[in-house]
Amino acid sequence: MLKIGGSVLTYKNKPFTTNKKNLERISKEIKQGYDPEKMRLILVHGAGSFGHYMVRKSRIYKGIKNKKQLLDFAKTQTKQNYWNSVVTESLQKENLPAIPIQASSSAVMSSVRLISMSTKVVEGLLKIGMIVTFYGVPAFDRKQKCSILSGDQIVSYLAKRLNPKRIIYGTDVDGIYTLDPKKDKKAKLIKTITMKNWKDVKRCLSVSSSIDVTHGMIGKVKEIMNLVKLGLECEIINANKSGYVERTLKGERGLGTIIKM
Amino acid sequence: MLKIGGSVLTYKNKPFTTNKKNLERISKEIKQGYDPEKMRLILVHGAGSFGHYMVRKSRIYKGIKNKKQLLDFAKTQTKQNYWNSVVTESLQKENLPAIPIQASSSAVMSSVRLISMSTKVVEGLLKIGMIVTFYGVPAFDRKQKCSILSGDQIVSYLAKRLNPKRIIYGTDVDGIYTLDPKKDKKAKLIKTITMKNWKDVKRCLSVSSSIDVTHGMIGKVKEIMNLVKLGLECEIINANKSGYVERTLKGERGLGTIIKM
Repeated sequence: MLKIGGSVLTYKNKPFTTNKKNLERISKEIKQGYDPEKMRLILVHGAGSFGHYMVRKSRIYKGIKNKKQLLDFAKTQTKQNYWNSVVTESLQKENLPAIPIQASSSAVMSSVRLISMSTKVVEGLLKIGMIVTFYGVPAFDRKQKCSILSGDQIVSYLAKRLNPKRIIYGTDVDGIYTLDPKKDKKAKLIKTITMKNWKDVKRCLSVSSSIDVTHGMIGKVKEIMNLVKLGLECEIINANKSGYVERTLKGERGLGTIIKM
Repeated sequence: MLKIGGSVLTYKNKPFTTNKKNLERISKEIKQGYDPEKMRLILVHGAGSFGHYMVRKSRIYKGIKNKKQLLDFAKTQTKQNYWNSVVTESLQKENLPAIPIQASSSAVMSSVRLISMSTKVVEGLLKIGMIVTFYGVPAFDRKQKCSILSGDQIVSYLAKRLNPKRIIYGTDVDGIYTLDPKKDKKAKLIKTITMKNWKDVKRCLSVSSSIDVTHGMIGKVKEIMNLVKLGLECEIINANKSGYVERTLKGERGLGTIIKM
């Protein structure tokens, strides 16, 4: 399972702009690293500047309170499907059978938590050799009508049910640091996080202020630890670095921060 | 439930071309005819020239037999999502909260028949006041890996489960004729089809040669009769005629061929 962050594929500060250079490069890297004879691949990509801007402005992540927000909910979903078309087309240009799956077509949320989602089709498509491609979306929420189903939440939900060999998080940082590397020169990359050193790491992260829009880095690692407890192997790598996605797909370990039991 | 045929919204003989005039007009008519206080609306649109061309050329409707077709399957899905973005954006311009639902995200087919599809999200979205928008898609098939899930099949599946007050089929003909109106001047529009005259009508239709790509007209009406038997009221209207969609949504009956118990 490969997650590519929205910040890698879009320019986060410019709404609705694709980082074409990165998208093309990563499509080529997946082409080189993916072996249809040996593996099954689920790709999950973030919304980046195609989503965060709209969601923050309309505040639909807090639920629907008026008619205007119903329209914003619809517009955001359409924009995400359009953005996923851009991503899957780029992969298809490399002859990769990357097929879109709109998670919110079957996902039921409840107070921002994903309660249920269909996985039958995913299993079927993987079996016949498709690259199943998910993306962050606004979704129906039983309690607040709408909430955001992030790419990371989709990864966790599917990982718990489909038991993938590896989960790779392609981000715009080298991995997990002791401090925020963008702010502190003393920050050191943590090569491996296990159940043993997790408590120490957590203390470090609480100090660091590297906060993402959807979750903080702590939230991200906490969520990953829940997968690790199930015996899954995760790694956070820097997808901005040329060749890292390809090498990791080919089986290389240790290019970023490994998180395992 | 409103189905708009792909032949109304696209130019069937020119691949990947939107009939913008019709799309804008029909969006405006839905805006005028849809009353969010009084009704819930599911919209289903066909693929028209965004789908039939690709599907016929790649032959994926007959199933997947090689790697090239896996890629065609993926490309066709991406194209349908893109096409649906065009349609939903047009509706959103009229301030209609039309939200895309990709049926193939949860639909499981078996030998071209739709076996199961998630409807929980549809019910939830309708309840909060969204216009749920489906479209014809290529879908996972247990037996032949891929088959086409047409807009008409989606309508039937949902109608059986959600029990809509009315089902309106917006097509490019005035309704059901005794003979093919494009070929025979003696052709007469049948105003009403019921269980009583259905046998006679069927005999007429078998003679007529008006054959659509996905089903023949006979297939279409046969499928509608299955819904009628459940007590549902259906009407086939000409969506190319200005005002017909709006008037029918507002409650008018008899603009085309009514099919009822």
